[in-house]
Amino acid sequence: MKLVFLGAGRLATQLAKACKANKHEIRQIYSQTEDSAKTLADLTGADYTCNLSDINEDADIYIYAVADKALENLISNISFNKGLHVHTAGSIPSDVFENHQNRYGVFYPFQTFSKEKTVDFSIIPILLETKNKADYLFLENFAGTLSNQVLSCSSDQRKAVHLSGVFACNFTNHMYRLAADIIKDAGLPFEILLPLIDETAAKVHEMEPAKAQTGPAIRYDLNVIEKHLSMLSDYPEMQELYELLSKQIHKM
Amino acid sequence: MKLVFLGAGRLATQLAKACKANKHEIRQIYSQTEDSAKTLADLTGADYTCNLSDINEDADIYIYAVADKALENLISNISFNKGLHVHTAGSIPSDVFENHQNRYGVFYPFQTFSKEKTVDFSIIPILLETKNKADYLFLENFAGTLSNQVLSCSSDQRKAVHLSGVFACNFTNHMYRLAADIIKDAGLPFEILLPLIDETAAKVHEMEPAKAQTGPAIRYDLNVIEKHLSMLSDYPEMQELYELLSKQIHKM
Repeated sequence: MKLVFLGAGRLATQLAKACKANKHEIRQIYSQTEDSAKTLADLTGADYTCNLSDINEDADIYIYAVADKALENLISNISFNKGLHVHTAGSIPSDVFENHQNRYGVFYPFQTFSKEKTVDFSIIPILLETKNKADYLFLENFAGTLSNQVLSCSSDQRKAVHLSGVFACNFTNHMYRLAADIIKDAGLPFEILLPLIDETAAKVHEMEPAKAQTGPAIRYDLNVIEKHLSMLSDYPEMQELYELLSKQIHKM
Repeated sequence: MKLVFLGAGRLATQLAKACKANKHEIRQIYSQTEDSAKTLADLTGADYTCNLSDINEDADIYIYAVADKALENLISNISFNKGLHVHTAGSIPSDVFENHQNRYGVFYPFQTFSKEKTVDFSIIPILLETKNKADYLFLENFAGTLSNQVLSCSSDQRKAVHLSGVFACNFTNHMYRLAADIIKDAGLPFEILLPLIDETAAKVHEMEPAKAQTGPAIRYDLNVIEKHLSMLSDYPEMQELYELLSKQIHKM
């Protein structure tokens, strides 16, 4: 498949690397930031441009991987109407392309990306939506070269998936951070948390989170909960969070 | 080492299995619940008893792995004073044994345990404390046969470690649960969350959680945050949590 990437951030970088590894031809990287465009172009053997009017018009798929707030403006500034145009944003409906393109859709890899850390794309769920049925098969065929888990997903479903990701990734990482702060304050290394973090994630491969729950909150062990709350008395924000979460876990 | 286990729950089960696999001799399992005692005794080739007065008095180490609220009572009902007595509780100081035993301490494996899911004990941090210096070396030697990560840890430090575990495990699992609820409500399978859950855990092996954070909260992308809050309008508890966490992540 001949591809053009619009955007050169974390998602674009990992996706472009996976496309390259799977023998797709990356024609061009567009980014407003020349450094980013050049870096990703070098990584993937593509050309690059920072100029919207220089975007190659002969690609099969145009993959928009820019910040949500930049997407609408970028779409409205693409002057040609050729190829299949897909964005990669969880919270934005596919019809953001309406009035600008005939063939459009969404290609949403449900994962968190870093620029440096290479991820195994073959296990990442890719959620697809297209305006036209024929394009769905086309996009599904492309996605299937990258991942073993390709699903159809409406714009409303994708919004929910994105929201669930905030809990499973961003909020979870915040829990790791608070745990790290407590461990370090106690003069111990963060690394002693890693086996627990890994096992907590591994457990939900074998049983649902609702069944995997342990700890003082689910037992509603008020003796331990009170001790913990008093240990957090110098950290009112953590204390508030501890209390709220313990109540919710107990109630569920 | 000749061992007696007092308790036959999740921790006792996994620890006794690891001890057995490392050629320690498990003399006896004590539990108030005959079924549990018998099951673990069968698993490890040990005798069992439900009677405190029948506890074998010739073991090297007595490992107390019972619920926090049962521990003090159990300790005060052990009538002999021989061997090294250790408990496995995060929040209870070691001197709970004072007035009952001369040789005592704490053996705290920092991990979450299930009865069924076997864990790799060799990577679990084991945090030790003893009353007597000589017993520390004795306990360290024993712990070293099970794990590559044995650390000295005071009762105060252990309390902090336990608290950090509530964030890294129990509260994290609660985030998984809320994410699962959202995904299922959208008519999609929970399993599409697993690669994201795994990657979020894997990331903090390579960078600190504070640096690994992504998502709308750290960008303080009010557009997405507002959309998410309105999607949660039928779930006031999740909405409250979402708002609190987003503010905290942004502030940090």
